[in-house]
Amino acid sequence: MGKRRRADSDSDSDDDTTTTRLPFKNRLKPDSVILSTLKTLSAATKSASTSKTLTLTDLSLSSTCREVTDLPLSSVQNRILTLALNLTKSILAGNGFSFSVPSRAATNQLYVPELDRIVLKDKSSVRPYASVSTVRKTTITTRILSLIHQLSLKNIHVTKRDLFYTDVKLFQDQTQSDAVLDDVSCILGCTRSSLNVVAAEKGVVVGRLVFSDNGDMIDCTKMGIGGKAIPPNIDRVGDMSSDALFILLVEKDAAYMRLAEDRFYNRFPCIIVTAKGQPDVATRLFLRKMKMELKLPVLALVDSDPYGLKILSVYGCGSKNMSYDSANLTTPDIKWLGIRPSDLDKYKIPEQCRLPMTEQDIKTGKDLLEEDFVKKNPGWVEELSLMVKSKQKAEIQALSTFGFQYLSEVYLPLKLQQQDWL
Amino acid sequence: MGKRRRADSDSDSDDDTTTTRLPFKNRLKPDSVILSTLKTLSAATKSASTSKTLTLTDLSLSSTCREVTDLPLSSVQNRILTLALNLTKSILAGNGFSFSVPSRAATNQLYVPELDRIVLKDKSSVRPYASVSTVRKTTITTRILSLIHQLSLKNIHVTKRDLFYTDVKLFQDQTQSDAVLDDVSCILGCTRSSLNVVAAEKGVVVGRLVFSDNGDMIDCTKMGIGGKAIPPNIDRVGDMSSDALFILLVEKDAAYMRLAEDRFYNRFPCIIVTAKGQPDVATRLFLRKMKMELKLPVLALVDSDPYGLKILSVYGCGSKNMSYDSANLTTPDIKWLGIRPSDLDKYKIPEQCRLPMTEQDIKTGKDLLEEDFVKKNPGWVEELSLMVKSKQKAEIQALSTFGFQYLSEVYLPLKLQQQDWL
Repeated sequence: MGKRRRADSDSDSDDDTTTTRLPFKNRLKPDSVILSTLKTLSAATKSASTSKTLTLTDLSLSSTCREVTDLPLSSVQNRILTLALNLTKSILAGNGFSFSVPSRAATNQLYVPELDRIVLKDKSSVRPYASVSTVRKTTITTRILSLIHQLSLKNIHVTKRDLFYTDVKLFQDQTQSDAVLDDVSCILGCTRSSLNVVAAEKGVVVGRLVFSDNGDMIDCTKMGIGGKAIPPNIDRVGDMSSDALFILLVEKDAAYMRLAEDRFYNRFPCIIVTAKGQPDVATRLFLRKMKMELKLPVLALVDSDPYGLKILSVYGCGSKNMSYDSANLTTPDIKWLGIRPSDLDKYKIPEQCRLPMTEQDIKTGKDLLEEDFVKKNPGWVEELSLMVKSKQKAEIQALSTFGFQYLSEVYLPLKLQQQDWL
Repeated sequence: MGKRRRADSDSDSDDDTTTTRLPFKNRLKPDSVILSTLKTLSAATKSASTSKTLTLTDLSLSSTCREVTDLPLSSVQNRILTLALNLTKSILAGNGFSFSVPSRAATNQLYVPELDRIVLKDKSSVRPYASVSTVRKTTITTRILSLIHQLSLKNIHVTKRDLFYTDVKLFQDQTQSDAVLDDVSCILGCTRSSLNVVAAEKGVVVGRLVFSDNGDMIDCTKMGIGGKAIPPNIDRVGDMSSDALFILLVEKDAAYMRLAEDRFYNRFPCIIVTAKGQPDVATRLFLRKMKMELKLPVLALVDSDPYGLKILSVYGCGSKNMSYDSANLTTPDIKWLGIRPSDLDKYKIPEQCRLPMTEQDIKTGKDLLEEDFVKKNPGWVEELSLMVKSKQKAEIQALSTFGFQYLSEVYLPLKLQQQDWL
């Protein structure tokens, strides 16, 4: 409670810093009331999660759609060996050397409302060695397969850049080895992390979470303000446990720092995670793992602009260019907590703290309105339409106009109290 | 040793992955030999560090040069109050309201070879309220001073962005509040971190280091592969202890991951730190604190291109636009370990793994050759000249051409064994 009282006096002294009074501060109920609200939400999520999540098979789409799965290294090795064996047989049988490569083109993608994510359909193309147009790509595919096989034998992780440099002469530029790496992922039917190829880490996590990183137990309540860097290789993350009531997904660094310094997670038990902008694969995998193992509700705090919603959607429904892996990369049922376009007036954000949307912003907003994952959520459509109509956007930081701690002391608590998420 | 043996077999199997044999692997002596080399280096650094580091006063430059220092919050408050008092007196005395603002222009900057860093000279300009040209800036300066005063009373940290949003109407755009923030830093003679204004965190650290982050003890050998995110506010970092023999400063993420996964710091006791590209203030402050408190040698692993050396120089001598704070932001005596232009031939990096320098690269390289901090190190001049002459650059990742672990298993150990740093 000491913390709380200090916090209060902070917000009060904020009044001096701003001519505006703090909107809605007086509406805040005691934390106990807000906490019971959160317990209800958390309980609801847990029971919902127990009901088996739908799969392509449940929708009898498994024959017409394709998905990759996480595989142990041994299975990856087996699949590569089997593939090599079949290729040899085909050659011996006089049918030559060719790969059957699943198409990752947009025309082969499908948004499945029941799953609320984008999946890959089953179209494939043949990549024969005996053809001038495909001989290089076939060679690259074979090379990548052998490199992946070595990685799995050693069980070490590398980046796409490392992979590229192992044979620059053949790959010529990284876009070629990257593209084929995704092909190989589809051919073998396993995720890129199963191939031990990882992306550079970017995200950080802090709050009521304990997990193991490569065998080291990490307590994220004891990570100071900096927090714990999210490991690049999810397969070495495990033993997750938590007494949090929800996961707070934050778009930006600055907001994360504010909440970490105020130890917001001690006032309202939660796990705070951010990818510092565009979601990277490591953070998306980490968020999904938390959601699946801890069965916690996920509330998103993003800028009130089209990109904020786009980022939310990447976490939720996946990105198009990795749709073949959407099952493993996406976190279902993320709630849009704020900053929502309707918050701008509701919280009396001063005109000077709002930014005019550029033509590009407006176009992106309109495009989003056409996306299935937005359409399926009437609340989101309403908010997004309001944004495009008002042509105004605002960053999370805009709340600082009411004092630096308005976010952690008033805005978020009130949002939680009012269950004001979509 | 088990680790070591596994590592060996790894590198051997690397031979299969590349047509090239592993250059110099056979030259590696037992780790014990390399370790004794490192102990000598570490001991030398410790004794050197005991000799007091030069200051402007020692060079009797304190009257003609200006530097800011880290101040406790109470002192910051006092300086602001004193300033306000003097302003009031000046107004009452009929001399009006004006600030004396140190000039941060390039013409007011000076590279001091004895200190090996850029410092600010003592030129100042008057910023009167009673002048159309400066009235806005004087108002902004006053506003920032009052905001900083509030931060110091609450002892919370905020970002420049937060600061901007507290009064968008006045500041109009962030460049204006940012610029004045630096002015205020110079006016008060204290560092930006003393003002509790922090930059977004970017860096990570792993290895033989224990420190406290806001009261939580962090053991960086128990941070898995992800490592510990470097805290944005250095003033909450303390209690550093370590049994490392050196600090390995890495430019890029991918190389950091490789070394973290191979637990390089267990084979050769060290602390591995990276800012993932351009050095941010938080990482620079953290590196300096490690160097100063642990008295360890710092070895830098950067790309072999002009930007690699530029990054090294920012850590070592500071950036021009923050020269007034170079004393606190810079880490003296950083050694250039690699990847050095001469390494490209020495380590037989295949032609395809080298990249041609662009016109811009070459220009940047030539400009660097004119910089004092490069000139004062003949070895650096030689290497940089070679780069500009050969017009070739290479990334750290280029070593992957000899196998993914060539960096940690051969290149770095040999560099250390041969004391091959400049």
